[in-house]
Amino acid sequence: MTDLRRRLAAEALGTAMLFATVVGSGIMASRLTGDVALSLLGNTIPTGAILVVLITTLGPVSGAHFNPAVTLVFGLRRDIGWLAVLGYITVQILGGLAGTLVAHAMFELPLLQVSATVRSGQGQWLAELVASFGLVFTILAGLRFRSDAIPWLVGLYITAAYWFTASTSFANPAVAIARAFSNTFAGIRPSDVPAFIAAELAGALLALALAGWLLAEPKILTEMKAAQ
Amino acid sequence: MTDLRRRLAAEALGTAMLFATVVGSGIMASRLTGDVALSLLGNTIPTGAILVVLITTLGPVSGAHFNPAVTLVFGLRRDIGWLAVLGYITVQILGGLAGTLVAHAMFELPLLQVSATVRSGQGQWLAELVASFGLVFTILAGLRFRSDAIPWLVGLYITAAYWFTASTSFANPAVAIARAFSNTFAGIRPSDVPAFIAAELAGALLALALAGWLLAEPKILTEMKAAQ
Amino acid sequence: MTDLRRRLAAEALGTAMLFATVVGSGIMASRLTGDVALSLLGNTIPTGAILVVLITTLGPVSGAHFNPAVTLVFGLRRDIGWLAVLGYITVQILGGLAGTLVAHAMFELPLLQVSATVRSGQGQWLAELVASFGLVFTILAGLRFRSDAIPWLVGLYITAAYWFTASTSFANPAVAIARAFSNTFAGIRPSDVPAFIAAELAGALLALALAGWLLAEPKILTEMKAAQ
Amino acid sequence: MTDLRRRLAAEALGTAMLFATVVGSGIMASRLTGDVALSLLGNTIPTGAILVVLITTLGPVSGAHFNPAVTLVFGLRRDIGWLAVLGYITVQILGGLAGTLVAHAMFELPLLQVSATVRSGQGQWLAELVASFGLVFTILAGLRFRSDAIPWLVGLYITAAYWFTASTSFANPAVAIARAFSNTFAGIRPSDVPAFIAAELAGALLALALAGWLLAEPKILTEMKAAQ
Repeated sequence: MTDLRRRLAAEALGTAMLFATVVGSGIMASRLTGDVALSLLGNTIPTGAILVVLITTLGPVSGAHFNPAVTLVFGLRRDIGWLAVLGYITVQILGGLAGTLVAHAMFELPLLQVSATVRSGQGQWLAELVASFGLVFTILAGLRFRSDAIPWLVGLYITAAYWFTASTSFANPAVAIARAFSNTFAGIRPSDVPAFIAAELAGALLALALAGWLLAEPKILTEMKAAQ
Repeated sequence: MTDLRRRLAAEALGTAMLFATVVGSGIMASRLTGDVALSLLGNTIPTGAILVVLITTLGPVSGAHFNPAVTLVFGLRRDIGWLAVLGYITVQILGGLAGTLVAHAMFELPLLQVSATVRSGQGQWLAELVASFGLVFTILAGLRFRSDAIPWLVGLYITAAYWFTASTSFANPAVAIARAFSNTFAGIRPSDVPAFIAAELAGALLALALAGWLLAEPKILTEMKAAQ
Repeated sequence: MTDLRRRLAAEALGTAMLFATVVGSGIMASRLTGDVALSLLGNTIPTGAILVVLITTLGPVSGAHFNPAVTLVFGLRRDIGWLAVLGYITVQILGGLAGTLVAHAMFELPLLQVSATVRSGQGQWLAELVASFGLVFTILAGLRFRSDAIPWLVGLYITAAYWFTASTSFANPAVAIARAFSNTFAGIRPSDVPAFIAAELAGALLALALAGWLLAEPKILTEMKAAQ
Repeated sequence: MTDLRRRLAAEALGTAMLFATVVGSGIMASRLTGDVALSLLGNTIPTGAILVVLITTLGPVSGAHFNPAVTLVFGLRRDIGWLAVLGYITVQILGGLAGTLVAHAMFELPLLQVSATVRSGQGQWLAELVASFGLVFTILAGLRFRSDAIPWLVGLYITAAYWFTASTSFANPAVAIARAFSNTFAGIRPSDVPAFIAAELAGALLALALAGWLLAEPKILTEMKAAQ
């Protein structure tokens, strides 16, 4: 029980730090320049960097999911139990909202905001599907071949995905929810959130299915292990 | 046979993700800013980052070539058979085209395009020769001395080559073909493609020849191994 | 005794190099561009990069604190004695001032300056508390799980914190003091320094307290070690 | 003898690639933007990246000095003989000039140029001294504590030094010579070169002297080794 409490605290802390970075660096960047590409760069580099830090430091405690779609995938793989899945998703959403509030407080903005940024349409949904597919595939392949490299792989993947996907890669249902409550660079209109979450879950499940085949151990190895 | 199917799937997937990143980040960057250096930076950072991710995660499955010139070099070294060479090159070209289409779809652009960007002249061809020479030499030297570092070496090499070569370093025949079908930041006019491919292959073969001498094991070591 | 002398020299040298980088890159960046986001990027990348270098190269000599708040935390953890704590903090402040002077000299500015940049208000203080909390938590978690990764973790954390905190993350009392004596991009008005230092120490102590619980070894492991 | 030939070839190739990157990315960047900070960033990132690649791939062959000041230091430490020192310095200068010519050829500029960029004055000389001191200290400390990390340490150090030194950190006599023959972003007026070289050598020797004391192994360890 104590153990689950610590894991939930780590998920909450990590998600809060991550979202404070996503929202805060977006505010900082758009305050300092009128060039939107430069704002996106000032949003990308801190996000990629903090992901490496948070996954390295909190991964050993909670697995460092920070993302309901990732937690769901680990639930389906039976890596964690469904009670933990529920707890993880709850604290991810709450932690994400808390981190967003802290970002607003640091920049002396109204704490509670609702975004008016329209993010909708087939291109955006395809982008979220691709972004989440790539993220979950990266994590599963990392676990399979180079688990020590996962913090870097995720940080670098998101660094790329901010730019190559038309939606700047939310790729995380908790991010979509939290960013609905921030009328800043990183925001999204609440009514656009459900379609984003649906696309993200679809991408995550697609990655789980593909990884099951593409990254499977050769049959002979599986049999040798079973025979031991 | 199953094994080759998986390797081909990994090559197709990786090349598609790579090219979606190259084309997609180019579209994103040039939409957000009028400063071309900033656009190139917004194209460079995602490309370098995704290369580290894709080579780490798919390398153990297929070797993560994503590049017909690299596959050809491994064929000449007899690291992979000629049937596999043919399969690899086919899926690299098809995967690259698919990734380009996905980028267009995400950004709600016409799926099928033909580039009008002129990229020709001796400077460009020399640049492609230098770029491909450096890429293949980096891979061969990485294999010789630090194979675990190859994902980083390739990602960093391409990061540099986008800037120090006058052609922004295609260095990959499949990239040249795919980018002919994208009339965006990263495009190239179809009639300019053959000379690019010729220069790329020349650079790759030059690297193979030089590496054979410069990176050779000391003779005494080779003899000791043969004697075992 | 000789040993402490070398450790103090390493702290002084490292802090001087670090602050010369922070102040010098700020001067360089703001001279070259009128875009403040670009200036912050030109301040961020060198700072993150030099942190990796200095912590890797001087960490084995002195621990590479370069920061009175960090030294205080290690004193409270009884990792270093109080005499060393005093010595460390003294040379960090002196080294930091020396590095600032060297930056001024390289850029042919008046050596002695007093900053006029106002950095005050609840948002700034909260930002310093958050920034220092994150820095100390990152170090303590790094020590617990991946001590070889600490140079990267600190460099990447500061890279992110420059952007996601409203204060651009001083997170270091010696930095706050030294930057009061530089009327450049990185400066801070002397009268604003005490509140920054108070917030930094509060954040550091908060991280120490949280880490004591969140990162504690499972009880059973502690008992096994005690029983040996 | 064969061995030295290969080492010299590796030094020549590496220095050529390095200088082609320094000069080429400077040309590319200043062609694409009018913002000088952005040009410096487009010069910095490729230089840092290619250093990691070249030192990793050629270090096992020649040590990857690419820098007469570094070679001189290794000569003084008796790590390499004086004949090799002479050979290294010769091919570094020739390789550097060749790389500069290749950059000019790729960008279709006149091959032979003489720079008109004034880089002089006490601030610049102090900057070169500091830059070279830091570079050589980084290498020596890396060799002492984490030799596998040296490619990253040097790449990151130069990334920082481009920004925190007023001279944008040449830190290399062969660079100073080669850049005198490029009237582009990275150039330096020939008459300013001797003072740069003098400052670079002074910084390198200072680092060698300090490292001898600060990074020395504890006496007891040295005695134990001697007793074996």
